[in-house]
Amino acid sequence: MIAYTPCTTESLRARLANVPAVTERLGTDSSVWDVREVGDGNLNLVFIVQSLQGALVVKQALPYVRLVGDSWPLPLKRSVFEYNALIRHALRDPGRVPEIYHFDEVQALVVMRYLSPHVILRKSIVTGVQHPNLAADMGLFLARTLFRGSNLSLPAPQAKADLALFSDNVALADITENLVFSDPYFDAAMNRHTPGLDPWITKLRTDRDMKVAAQAMKHAFVSKSETLVHGDLHSGSIMVTAEDTQVIDPEFAIYGPFGFDIGMLLANFLLGYFAQSGHEATPGDRAAYRSWLLSVTRDTWGVFVAEFSRLWRTERTGILYQRALFEDQGDPLASEQALQDVLRGIWVDAMGFCGVEMHRRVLGLAHVEDLESITDDSRRLIAERRALALGRHVTINRAIITMEGLIALAERIEEEDLA
Amino acid sequence: MIAYTPCTTESLRARLANVPAVTERLGTDSSVWDVREVGDGNLNLVFIVQSLQGALVVKQALPYVRLVGDSWPLPLKRSVFEYNALIRHALRDPGRVPEIYHFDEVQALVVMRYLSPHVILRKSIVTGVQHPNLAADMGLFLARTLFRGSNLSLPAPQAKADLALFSDNVALADITENLVFSDPYFDAAMNRHTPGLDPWITKLRTDRDMKVAAQAMKHAFVSKSETLVHGDLHSGSIMVTAEDTQVIDPEFAIYGPFGFDIGMLLANFLLGYFAQSGHEATPGDRAAYRSWLLSVTRDTWGVFVAEFSRLWRTERTGILYQRALFEDQGDPLASEQALQDVLRGIWVDAMGFCGVEMHRRVLGLAHVEDLESITDDSRRLIAERRALALGRHVTINRAIITMEGLIALAERIEEEDLA
Repeated sequence: MIAYTPCTTESLRARLANVPAVTERLGTDSSVWDVREVGDGNLNLVFIVQSLQGALVVKQALPYVRLVGDSWPLPLKRSVFEYNALIRHALRDPGRVPEIYHFDEVQALVVMRYLSPHVILRKSIVTGVQHPNLAADMGLFLARTLFRGSNLSLPAPQAKADLALFSDNVALADITENLVFSDPYFDAAMNRHTPGLDPWITKLRTDRDMKVAAQAMKHAFVSKSETLVHGDLHSGSIMVTAEDTQVIDPEFAIYGPFGFDIGMLLANFLLGYFAQSGHEATPGDRAAYRSWLLSVTRDTWGVFVAEFSRLWRTERTGILYQRALFEDQGDPLASEQALQDVLRGIWVDAMGFCGVEMHRRVLGLAHVEDLESITDDSRRLIAERRALALGRHVTINRAIITMEGLIALAERIEEEDLA
Repeated sequence: MIAYTPCTTESLRARLANVPAVTERLGTDSSVWDVREVGDGNLNLVFIVQSLQGALVVKQALPYVRLVGDSWPLPLKRSVFEYNALIRHALRDPGRVPEIYHFDEVQALVVMRYLSPHVILRKSIVTGVQHPNLAADMGLFLARTLFRGSNLSLPAPQAKADLALFSDNVALADITENLVFSDPYFDAAMNRHTPGLDPWITKLRTDRDMKVAAQAMKHAFVSKSETLVHGDLHSGSIMVTAEDTQVIDPEFAIYGPFGFDIGMLLANFLLGYFAQSGHEATPGDRAAYRSWLLSVTRDTWGVFVAEFSRLWRTERTGILYQRALFEDQGDPLASEQALQDVLRGIWVDAMGFCGVEMHRRVLGLAHVEDLESITDDSRRLIAERRALALGRHVTINRAIITMEGLIALAERIEEEDLA
């Protein structure tokens, strides 16, 4: 066994030449393969390996955060969690995640489908490209992965074994715990923000109710082990074509609340929404795209609810809300009542997470290209103020707000500059 | 290494003769030790081993449920969870659990302090004996073990490692999941109940809101991994003298909600309360004892709140509600606001669990001696009706009820027979 070594394009070529799952796709003459390192994420090496016969992607973890360097070590084992999440996602929502061809745990290396001509959804949102299937695909993905990873569906021993497996993903959970829930709310070392935003930041960081609410959401993230969450489901973790949607990069996977992935994803749609004005060449030329992003926000949740409800009625084989107590007693309405109760809890959590995610993308370490690519500081500042304001409102009012209220408030904040 | 074998008094004597932790307490001449099997619980072998020099208790798990026989297998590994919970409890609330002298994982055998002249608290409640320190001791135990086992206190990697460790306690969690939360609410095979109670049982089992609420509590039990809970904290798991209180038998330990142990314990006080009338030789001769049980209910919660609040202010070193966001920003009231919010959540959960525990002790497999020892069926039935009624009220109204309301309602149900 060869000890872990970060790959170069040449060492990767040599390593893959002996892997049948690779040679059956690219051919056995590895000398003709084109190998390129293309990683632009924060954490890992990413290679595309191509021949005339085919292509694939290789993702290799580095023992530190790529963006920062070896001063920030990060366990290689995250590739184990990514691999385990990917194979579960593939089972639970077939076709929505890249197929895995090969996994090498020692090298922390996953070989998988090369997605082409897919682009990162966030790039589409920055350039203003619509994807008609996005909301449906993501609503289904959320419902299926979250329902089928939970005690609503899995046998209890399997759910508890997976809880134990993913609870070891300590280092990546730690990143979320700090960067999403805590750092944005005080003057933490790695935070950064747009010049001129200080007065609004001071207001938020002295907002007692907001800080308590953000910490309540951290409490929920840390303690509610409801299902296997992707853990980093923003628009940079989704790849799209005109027709297709693929969900990638679940290395932050952990058992967490049903509402976490949902809230984070909706927040990223809303960040995209507020960013649009910064990308307009003439005022209003992104108005239709803005509306589309709100429709995606609404429809993602709507599809989630419909599919989650369908699975509740047809696949509820776990230990929670057993049919023996409801349908089998001739009281299907009890099951519907419980479903509404569960959906309500998911929504409230999702809204709490949504607001916190909007804040950290403006105030914390990891910003979003939607806003970062607005070159005019003053236009970016306006968009960011709006995101801060909506984020505060939805987290604080998570037990009150409706989807209609969320959409209407986003529009009012945008149009009347209520921030 | 000798394979696991259930002990007899003689094989145990031989086995312990070579254990220094035993011989230093009992002397090296094992032939003079008095060894007796005294287990009267549902699951295990329990031995008292005594010499002129000292005494100790040996608890050995059997590979099945003792009460039922080998038709109901149960993993020996539960002794690992019991051992691990006991050493954590000893650290977190020193002096409140029996000291462990020796643990043999292969033999599933724990050697520990012989508690004498302690009696099981439930026996005291049946006979009407007061224990002045009970509420204070249990309030402190609950606050210290629950706070110090959580992400309010522990370093996150340690909390996550313990979550993983105890998540393997699948078989005993399964018992709770079924016997506490599900079986009581339908005609499950192992249920039993007092003759004549059927009309009230039918009413409860067709009570849609109650069944949905009970399943919501099961959802919370299964998914809220907030802290290490004892998992079976009823009055049979507490041993008392006039002065002392000891908490035993944490083999059901698992990561669960803050409110679980609290709700279960308060429910057992309230079951004791309603049972008193069945033990009166003349009407009213247990009135003072009834009042005392209500004061224990009130004070256990009161002491819990005071101690949990003290720990919150002085030992909040975990990743939740960090001082960096509150006190260190000059806003200690934010920390107090968050504390109230957390205590509120604990109370609501505790009330939900309290009602369900009251129900299952009347309707399920495992009843309580408080009620079982009432020889007159009609008097037991009255007590049980009252327990069912209060249980229903507190679970359904868990988000509304106060401690004052709980006490007042218990008294009204008892005095005016509102059940």
